Amino acid sequence: MAELHLCSPLGFKASGVYAGIKSKEAPDVGMIVCDTTATAAAVFTTNKVVAAPLIIGRENIARGKLRGIVVNAGNANACTGKQGLHDARQMCHLAGIAVGCDENLILPSSTGIIGHLMPMEKIERGIAHAAHALGSDREHSLHFSDAILTTDLTRKEAATTFKLGRSKITLAGVCKGSGMIGPRMALPHATMLGYLTTDAGITPGLLRKLLGAAAEDSFNAVTVDDHTSTNDTCAILASGASNAKINSPRAVKAFTNALNEVCQSLAYQIAADGEGATKVVTIQVEGATTEAAAKTIARTIANSPLVKCAMNGNDPNWGRIVSAAGYAGVPFDPDKSTLTLQGVVVFRHGRPVPFDAEKLSDALKVPEVRVLLSCRLGKAKATCWTCDFSKEYVTINADYHT
Amino acid sequence: MAELHLCSPLGFKASGVYAGIKSKEAPDVGMIVCDTTATAAAVFTTNKVVAAPLIIGRENIARGKLRGIVVNAGNANACTGKQGLHDARQMCHLAGIAVGCDENLILPSSTGIIGHLMPMEKIERGIAHAAHALGSDREHSLHFSDAILTTDLTRKEAATTFKLGRSKITLAGVCKGSGMIGPRMALPHATMLGYLTTDAGITPGLLRKLLGAAAEDSFNAVTVDDHTSTNDTCAILASGASNAKINSPRAVKAFTNALNEVCQSLAYQIAADGEGATKVVTIQVEGATTEAAAKTIARTIANSPLVKCAMNGNDPNWGRIVSAAGYAGVPFDPDKSTLTLQGVVVFRHGRPVPFDAEKLSDALKVPEVRVLLSCRLGKAKATCWTCDFSKEYVTINADYHT
Repeated sequence: MAELHLCSPLGFKASGVYAGIKSKEAPDVGMIVCDTTATAAAVFTTNKVVAAPLIIGRENIARGKLRGIVVNAGNANACTGKQGLHDARQMCHLAGIAVGCDENLILPSSTGIIGHLMPMEKIERGIAHAAHALGSDREHSLHFSDAILTTDLTRKEAATTFKLGRSKITLAGVCKGSGMIGPRMALPHATMLGYLTTDAGITPGLLRKLLGAAAEDSFNAVTVDDHTSTNDTCAILASGASNAKINSPRAVKAFTNALNEVCQSLAYQIAADGEGATKVVTIQVEGATTEAAAKTIARTIANSPLVKCAMNGNDPNWGRIVSAAGYAGVPFDPDKSTLTLQGVVVFRHGRPVPFDAEKLSDALKVPEVRVLLSCRLGKAKATCWTCDFSKEYVTINADYHT
Repeated sequence: MAELHLCSPLGFKASGVYAGIKSKEAPDVGMIVCDTTATAAAVFTTNKVVAAPLIIGRENIARGKLRGIVVNAGNANACTGKQGLHDARQMCHLAGIAVGCDENLILPSSTGIIGHLMPMEKIERGIAHAAHALGSDREHSLHFSDAILTTDLTRKEAATTFKLGRSKITLAGVCKGSGMIGPRMALPHATMLGYLTTDAGITPGLLRKLLGAAAEDSFNAVTVDDHTSTNDTCAILASGASNAKINSPRAVKAFTNALNEVCQSLAYQIAADGEGATKVVTIQVEGATTEAAAKTIARTIANSPLVKCAMNGNDPNWGRIVSAAGYAGVPFDPDKSTLTLQGVVVFRHGRPVPFDAEKLSDALKVPEVRVLLSCRLGKAKATCWTCDFSKEYVTINADYHT
């Protein structure tokens, strides 16, 4: 799997170049281009403050067809008024000319500081350079991965393959996201950015539906700071170049599994690279009354600064977890509940269960902590990924701007 | 006003003693006792995990009459099952014997670590000692104020007087709260703890109603970490000893004003002493569609870790504020909105407004920062108080337990 990358699916090229938008010298303009017009779908933020590229992107994705994606990091082009809309359209126009397609077949994306007008001279040169630099090998894929990063410390990629009859289908993805992470993306509306490529053949309607469902249980289930961005976007392009079509229940199931695998791997990587994070905390809630209730409880625990600080300190302070479940605003009864930390039962049916605090604290000094809350009220369950809250998080976010 | 304290209203005595429950040597058991049976009302947490003393307290307050309050810090008596209920009842029993009243006339309160059984031997000695130590001067009031503190750095008190005809009415209050602060208290249901005393004469029903309204716009409008505690409680005792009765529209108005003044002062003091806080951030939202929407927007901004870190860094990163309003889940239109930071307009009608970033950053280096968001969608408004997020917050909360 180590060899797979964003351009492993047949029919794709990518690039990432430095255009001087980021303060540090690193790629900041990227493109993904399909050799042919791809079937496409995307989910966008549900924030009522929607960045300009998303407003243009929602229009361009409406017909379920795209040739490519153009993205910059370093400036979000959000809260930028009419000039911002003009600039986002201009990004599509420039990419369309460079690729040789209608500008409506380009999805624009931006990430970075909110409320600053785009440096369009740099963007213009960057897009020309990125179009010229397109390639389909691993190196080019990595350049794209790097071009979308902001406060991220690591690039995030995932890919998988599966067989349909004699055909091999590849599905790959990259994403960014470290802070301002609390995506609540919806169709046709996801600052995480995620881009997926596949060489499967699929209809726009089905692709839309499957992407929406996959995003819900992956990107929408990860939170660093619960701050739903103005720019969250996840898009998928399907080239059809494998000649295999997703047109049978079995094919849909195989494609769905592949999509979930890639999206969940990417989402997990976002939690692991959360700003200042030293560990991933996986919150599983089971036995809730409804799936929505299970998600709400998991997310409320995942967003509690007290829980996140305890995790940073390897502190089995489980009272913070149970009390967070209690204020989630959905059915929850402590007298029926059981809480397990790293496999150790610490609370059962309203009462504390004695445990070796020192030993459990040691068990929390790992890259992934598992929290399991069983509610015994119903059959619904949900999983949410978060990270701990560290002093480094405060350092990163106390002077990002000035 | 400097001379007023919790026992300034006629008819009250208080005490605070050290019983060895807190790890540091400081008062940890306190009592307030009224000379006669007082009219009483209380609001309690809406968390579904309700600490044992609140379960007993809800029963005891039901008839609107109390003789006294017994409280300990250092142990929350939450998630402690049947033993916890027994222990909370025992606190009332012991206080009742010491004071010479029915145990049902005592309101028990606890704050501290969740999930540990109460050290009842220490509690028993503490209550006997506290009952013996009761007094009505300022010193005794301060001992009580100190006995309810946990991670608080400062005691919190407020008081006011007003005239009804020739009678002078005094209303005083103390509270604690620094972390696990996101109260959502409701009738008859508030780990902030607040205790108010007054010598006004008032019916239980009216007192209940006025306390509920006052708590909503004070304690329920303050957030440090949005973590609604299992133990939040605010209670008021009215001795009637002033001989003035709150039984006319004018008297109700004067009492309501006094109650709001004291509650809002106490709530502000909680934000100012929020764990690790270096400043208070006052979020005012106006022009929202409904009061509930205004509160939701204000609270969403107030709880954003990104906004709170920016405030810690004196960083006028207003994009985080506008984007937080956008994901609050209530009507909001950036194109109609205006954002003002310390009186400087930074965003108007969907577009950034140029400002001197260095100068504004300097203007943020103050004990209180004012954020004003005008939505131009309606006439509703709300105010919420929070504090910044510092590295000290993480230090405090990464090892509170172990």
